[in-house]
Amino acid sequence: MVKGRLFVISGPSGVGKGAICHKLIAEKGLKFSVSMTTRKPRAGEKHGEDYYFVSKEEFNEIRNRNGFLEFAEVYGNFYGTPRLEISEALESGRDVLLDIDTQGALNVQKTCDDAVFIFILPPSTAELRRRIKDRGTETEESLNRRLSAAIHEISLLAHYDYCVVNDDLDVAAAQVGAVIEAERLRVPKDTKDVTELIDQYKGGI
Amino acid sequence: MVKGRLFVISGPSGVGKGAICHKLIAEKGLKFSVSMTTRKPRAGEKHGEDYYFVSKEEFNEIRNRNGFLEFAEVYGNFYGTPRLEISEALESGRDVLLDIDTQGALNVQKTCDDAVFIFILPPSTAELRRRIKDRGTETEESLNRRLSAAIHEISLLAHYDYCVVNDDLDVAAAQVGAVIEAERLRVPKDTKDVTELIDQYKGGI
Repeated sequence: MVKGRLFVISGPSGVGKGAICHKLIAEKGLKFSVSMTTRKPRAGEKHGEDYYFVSKEEFNEIRNRNGFLEFAEVYGNFYGTPRLEISEALESGRDVLLDIDTQGALNVQKTCDDAVFIFILPPSTAELRRRIKDRGTETEESLNRRLSAAIHEISLLAHYDYCVVNDDLDVAAAQVGAVIEAERLRVPKDTKDVTELIDQYKGGI
Repeated sequence: MVKGRLFVISGPSGVGKGAICHKLIAEKGLKFSVSMTTRKPRAGEKHGEDYYFVSKEEFNEIRNRNGFLEFAEVYGNFYGTPRLEISEALESGRDVLLDIDTQGALNVQKTCDDAVFIFILPPSTAELRRRIKDRGTETEESLNRRLSAAIHEISLLAHYDYCVVNDDLDVAAAQVGAVIEAERLRVPKDTKDVTELIDQYKGGI
């Protein structure tokens, strides 16, 4: 049984990772890993869809029993990736999509070195500023703090496998889709899987 | 200046590599590397397009001055990949597509380890037999010889990066296209190229 692949989408806050993931989940038959957070829901965000919104106590309880693949504190809030859902999906052969910040992505890299890491870049720093501003949730001070953080995050690019510039959402989603499709065409790393494939042709002669 | 990428398409004779390449060259803006051969042209094959058809003397002259990236003898005929055309295209930033047999591909691998190796598989051994037969150029004996060779070639699959099953030509070409697109989205291996990219964002703050 060939296992599923873990695709990690990451990049600075405000770059449009969520919108790209939304477009791809159904199209590529991916299991979306919903993160858990202690931050308050933004307008329109749904529990169990965008995030599992939990209390600090609930979060700590899961953390204490090693239930997170990774977790991190970002701007005073906790974010974590529940381990069980992901491992079950991968074991059953399903590909999983994970949308996390760069700190979380680098933590996942430590334990899942065969995951595929995709970085989403803004077309420019000016455009990223505009997008964060348009969310309307930021003060000038927090906007500048987010932009500095974004530049720091972009400087981690070399740790990733692929990078996609999100200028036009449809183009960017298609490009991430091509990466997913290509990775599905990889010659299996497990020698046993390759031998099985070759044996099918040998049997047919 | 980011260099071009070398894509090597390979697989057993009769699997439809040529048709896949034809569909992709214009669509993906690739430079197609035309091989040189001492074999006679088949019906419809054009000099300079499908192959450079040359005499054994011409072939040897180029071989003697190290003008081939790789060359091999297959069924008594010589095949070679002219080196100069490819290196000029790659240096100018152009991606190159190379359609060669597995023997040639493994030779290219020895010198170009950053090339991308794509194996084209038939849907089944029975279907490959039918396709070779439909060419109408084979005796029963040479057909069996080709099929045995095909099985040997398929057993080299583990040396490749990607594999695509050519059942439906349009689907197979789209899959190879996705691999090409994905490889173009790779984070550059050269640290200098990554730093330049990051500096663009730093400059915009």
